[in-house]
Amino acid sequence: MRLALYSYWRSSSSWRVRIGLHWKGIPFEYRAVDLREGVQFGDVHGARNAMHQVPVLEVEEDGVVHHLAQSMAILQWLEERFPSPALLPADAYGRARVRMLAEHVNSGIQPYQNQAVLKWLQEQRTGLALEWVQHWLRQGLEALEHAVAYGAGNFCHGHSPSLADLYLVPQLYGARRFGVGVDAWPTLKRIERACQELPAFARAAPLAQPDAPAAPAAQPDAPAPAAERS
Amino acid sequence: MRLALYSYWRSSSSWRVRIGLHWKGIPFEYRAVDLREGVQFGDVHGARNAMHQVPVLEVEEDGVVHHLAQSMAILQWLEERFPSPALLPADAYGRARVRMLAEHVNSGIQPYQNQAVLKWLQEQRTGLALEWVQHWLRQGLEALEHAVAYGAGNFCHGHSPSLADLYLVPQLYGARRFGVGVDAWPTLKRIERACQELPAFARAAPLAQPDAPAAPAAQPDAPAPAAERS
Repeated sequence: MRLALYSYWRSSSSWRVRIGLHWKGIPFEYRAVDLREGVQFGDVHGARNAMHQVPVLEVEEDGVVHHLAQSMAILQWLEERFPSPALLPADAYGRARVRMLAEHVNSGIQPYQNQAVLKWLQEQRTGLALEWVQHWLRQGLEALEHAVAYGAGNFCHGHSPSLADLYLVPQLYGARRFGVGVDAWPTLKRIERACQELPAFARAAPLAQPDAPAAPAAQPDAPAPAAERS
Repeated sequence: MRLALYSYWRSSSSWRVRIGLHWKGIPFEYRAVDLREGVQFGDVHGARNAMHQVPVLEVEEDGVVHHLAQSMAILQWLEERFPSPALLPADAYGRARVRMLAEHVNSGIQPYQNQAVLKWLQEQRTGLALEWVQHWLRQGLEALEHAVAYGAGNFCHGHSPSLADLYLVPQLYGARRFGVGVDAWPTLKRIERACQELPAFARAAPLAQPDAPAAPAAQPDAPAPAAERS
């Protein structure tokens, strides 16, 4: 089996999958898709993912090439094919809680900071793009703090990382990027620190990717003309 | 085990879970949460789901009450505990494709028609709420048509319903509700018809719910002052 990940250094959805791959110790080729240049809108990437987004995991197995899209689908495929170390708990209620927490981010928060969405709001000259993204970040993270705190261990669920942590860490980066401080959510912040001490999380971070800007002083920038999510 | 579903008749996320319950033939008590009256924002519902959304599946087992939120988490819990009839394929690549299609709707389309989002746009007096929702519906369903067509059987994946179909049917209803016709997407429309012939889908439909308006001539209405999603 040969794995390649189509990714963009700053895409939070790509970031989740990078953590999963590194956490499980799975070798993969990194293939950068430059969202700022609109590469994802071309036919070549469209054949990999009709939604024209990253990440896409390319898997070649038994001579067949598969393209998997959507971070939740990719990560659960990885969990099924590379079950150890696990990213889902052993019990069904635990799995339901972890999937719930991940979805609070995946479908409940991140879609509103999607670059394509911010670009659309800017093009309409509403002047609301920043207020918009901050509103949904604050509301969503406030709810997430409560949901995580009720049942957290050192990590979102128990004492080892799960899918929920893979969604949390990039989401907190997204909050800061858009000017939302995270001090109001102590549980989330504590878990983020625990994650950042793990090498797999460090290797998956945006600035550690080959397509990141060379200088580590990359500034928070205006929303790029591109969809940064899967 | 005793199951109760907190639901709102018109919530597309609740609808997905209702289909899953009926398809698997699982008895449950229906508990209406009136999103128009803001019941979901109270502490009582907040203790069930910190995101203050429906659906929530309440499960009482061995004297313990569990509250499961997020349609993807609920439906996969149901799949694990009530595996037959299956809503996920037997092979890992098939499961990845079905989860991808479901997520195209769950995180890629539906969040933009969320009632809380439309209400926010209306309160800002942008005049853009309808244009907004139609833009994301058209773009998302166009992509979904391509993703589903490549590999569809009588249903989104193969010849029996899967999770993907549970997400498709309410999403097409959402499109029509917001004035987006679905004739441009023949594969999606054909699969919707196949689903509608199944009793489980009919029993889960909005107007078949106890909290639906008595008259079947319910008009498409303005976005309600409430979050209709999980």
